Amino acid sequence: MEDKRTHELPELYAPNGGEGPYSYSQNSNYQRGVVEAAKEKINEAIANHFDIQTFCGTKNPVCIVDLGCSTGANTFITVQNIVEAIKLKYKSKGVNAQIPDFLVFFNDNVSNDFNTLFKSLPPNRQYFAAGVPGSFHGCLFPKASLHLIHSSCALNWLSKIPIEITDESSPAWNKGRIHYTNATKEVVEAYETQFSKDMESFLFSRAQELVVGGLLVLFVPAVPDVMSNSDTYTGTELDILGSCLMDMAKVGLVEEAKVDSFNVPAYYTPPKKLKALIERNGNFSIKRMEVLNNQKKHLILQSSSLRSLYLRAVLEGMIEKHFGNEILDELFNRFTHKIEGSSFFLNPETEKLIILFVLLERNN
Amino acid sequence: MEDKRTHELPELYAPNGGEGPYSYSQNSNYQRGVVEAAKEKINEAIANHFDIQTFCGTKNPVCIVDLGCSTGANTFITVQNIVEAIKLKYKSKGVNAQIPDFLVFFNDNVSNDFNTLFKSLPPNRQYFAAGVPGSFHGCLFPKASLHLIHSSCALNWLSKIPIEITDESSPAWNKGRIHYTNATKEVVEAYETQFSKDMESFLFSRAQELVVGGLLVLFVPAVPDVMSNSDTYTGTELDILGSCLMDMAKVGLVEEAKVDSFNVPAYYTPPKKLKALIERNGNFSIKRMEVLNNQKKHLILQSSSLRSLYLRAVLEGMIEKHFGNEILDELFNRFTHKIEGSSFFLNPETEKLIILFVLLERNN
Repeated sequence: MEDKRTHELPELYAPNGGEGPYSYSQNSNYQRGVVEAAKEKINEAIANHFDIQTFCGTKNPVCIVDLGCSTGANTFITVQNIVEAIKLKYKSKGVNAQIPDFLVFFNDNVSNDFNTLFKSLPPNRQYFAAGVPGSFHGCLFPKASLHLIHSSCALNWLSKIPIEITDESSPAWNKGRIHYTNATKEVVEAYETQFSKDMESFLFSRAQELVVGGLLVLFVPAVPDVMSNSDTYTGTELDILGSCLMDMAKVGLVEEAKVDSFNVPAYYTPPKKLKALIERNGNFSIKRMEVLNNQKKHLILQSSSLRSLYLRAVLEGMIEKHFGNEILDELFNRFTHKIEGSSFFLNPETEKLIILFVLLERNN
Repeated sequence: MEDKRTHELPELYAPNGGEGPYSYSQNSNYQRGVVEAAKEKINEAIANHFDIQTFCGTKNPVCIVDLGCSTGANTFITVQNIVEAIKLKYKSKGVNAQIPDFLVFFNDNVSNDFNTLFKSLPPNRQYFAAGVPGSFHGCLFPKASLHLIHSSCALNWLSKIPIEITDESSPAWNKGRIHYTNATKEVVEAYETQFSKDMESFLFSRAQELVVGGLLVLFVPAVPDVMSNSDTYTGTELDILGSCLMDMAKVGLVEEAKVDSFNVPAYYTPPKKLKALIERNGNFSIKRMEVLNNQKKHLILQSSSLRSLYLRAVLEGMIEKHFGNEILDELFNRFTHKIEGSSFFLNPETEKLIILFVLLERNN
C-alpha cells in the first residue's frame, strides 16, 4: 500500500530542539535569511502556477507540507507566506467566497522536537496544523493528497552515510576527515552516488503524494556548477570542524578512530546534477531553477561565534551521538577560534554556497 | 474560516509524558482494559455502519483521528483495530483491489508528549501518521475531512474549571474539596453546566469535521443514571485525594487556600444527560449507546499502589502546576495508604464508574 521505506530508515538527526542557547530556534538566522529572500519566489510561483481551478473545489481543503521544518519560527513564516499567497490568488480571481480550509503538515525526522514546534504554533494561524514525523526520503502521505510541498535548507541532508566511507578496506575510506571536501575522488563519488539515490527516492515519493498539477517548491543548499570540491564554502567549514576533531585526537581528547568513523551526511549539489536527476525522474516539469539572491548571507555569518552556534544547532545531535556530549563545548570553542583565522571567513567573497530555488509541477 | 476557539483555549493538561515510572505509557492499564473490551464494539460498528461505498473512492485516503490519544501504546492498538476492521470490510465486499490509503491523526492537548508518541509509532504500521496538537473542544480539522473519529477515556475532561467554583464570593465556591463529590448542589451544577457547554462545542466541532455518514465512536467514562453524586466511584477517589491535600494543609505542607483554589476538571455524565445533549445538537443519529463490559476493571485497580500510579500518571501535570512538584511523592504516598482503608477499595462492587460506548453517525 505505502512505501515501506518510510519506516525502515535508520535513525536520522534533526537540529537541536527546545529554545535554549544552542537550539535551532535560537540559531537559525542564516535559514531565516533564506526564508525572507524566498518569499517573493513563493509568491510568484503561486501566482503563476498554483491551479486553484482544477484541484481545489470549495469542499476540499488545500493541503500543504513543509518538509524538514525543524522547530519555529522559520517554518511558520514560510507557511503563512504560502497560505496568504494562495488566498490572494482566490481573491484576485474573484472567488473570495470559495476560499477553502487549509491543512498544513509540519514534517521532520522522528528525532525532531515536535513538542517545542507545537507549543510555538502561531495562536492566530489561519490553517489547521498537524505534525508528521519521518524521513522525507520515503513516502509520508497518502497518494495524491497534497497540493503544495515546500522544503527549505533540507535537501542537502543525505539519508545516510555511504557505507564504504567508513570501511577501512575500501578505497573510499575517509580517514581523518568528516566530509568530502579535499577528500579522495572515491569519497566524493560515494557522496554523489548517495545523493543521487536519495533524490531519486525523494522525487519518487513526492510524485506519489502530489496531485497532478501540484507544486514542489524547493530551496536547496548547493554549489555553482563550475566549482571544484576543494572550493566549496560549506565543505571548508566542515573541513575546519574535522581538523578541530583531529587536533583533539592528537592531544587525546577524542579517539582518532572515532574521527575516522564520523562523517557528516551532507551533500551540496551543483545545479546541473540536480536538473539531470529531476529530468531522469520524469514526473515533474521544471518551471523555475535559479540561484536565490540571499543578500543577508554575509551579514549573518560574519561573527565567528554566531557562525559556530549556527553549525552547532544543526550538527550537535549527530556529534553527541557519536562522541558523547562532553566534547561539545571544547570542539565548538576550537572551531570558533580556528575559523577566525581562516581565509574563507576573513574574505566572505570566497564563500561559494548558493541556495537554489527550484519550482516543479507534477505532470499528468 | 475555521472555528477560532481552537486556538484561544487556556492551557490544558495531558497525562504524563515519557516512559518513566510515573508516565502514562507505563500506567495506563486501566485504559488498556477499555481498549481491549472496545475492540468488538469497534469491529461491529465498522462492519454495520462504515459506508465504504459512499465516501471512500479509490483515490481518496480514509482519514481517521484518535482524540485524546496521549502517548502509546493504547492509541496504537485502537488505531490498528480500526484500520484492520475497515480493510476487512473492503475485503468482505470483494473490493480488495480498491483498498485506499489510510491517514491517521493522533490528537491530544498541546502539552501532550508528542515526541514520545512519535518515537513509539509502530514501525510496521499500515497507515500514514500525523500528530495534531490542540483541544478537542474546538475544531481541529478542515470541514468534512474525516471519516471516523474515535475517542476513549477522554470526554470526562472538561475544557476548564467553571469560574464560580474558585470564587470565594460565589455560592458555588468549592472550599476544602477538589471535585464535586459530596460537594454542594451549586458546585455540582457548575460542573454539569460546564460539561454541557463542552459537549455542545465538542459535537459542533465533530459535526464540522466529519463527512456525511462518517462515524463518531466514543468510549466515555460515566456513571449510571440512578446514582447520586456521593455514590460515584471516581468521585470517591478524587474525594480521598482531596482529603489527603487537606491533611497536608493541616500540617503545613501545603497552603489551605491553594487546596481551595484547586479543582479537577473532570465530570462523569449519566447516560441520559449525554443522550439529551446529542439529541439537542441534532447533527448525529445515535446508532448504539450501551455500557461497555469492562471485565478487567477490578483486576487492574486492585492494587493500591497501581491505583495510585494510574491516578498520578493522569493528574500529576495539573497538580504540579498548581502546587509545585515537591508535594507529589508525599501526596501520592498518603493517597496509596488512605485508599487501602477505604470501603470502595476493600469492596470493589461499590465501584460505580462505567464506560459508555456511544456510536454516532453524521446526518445529512
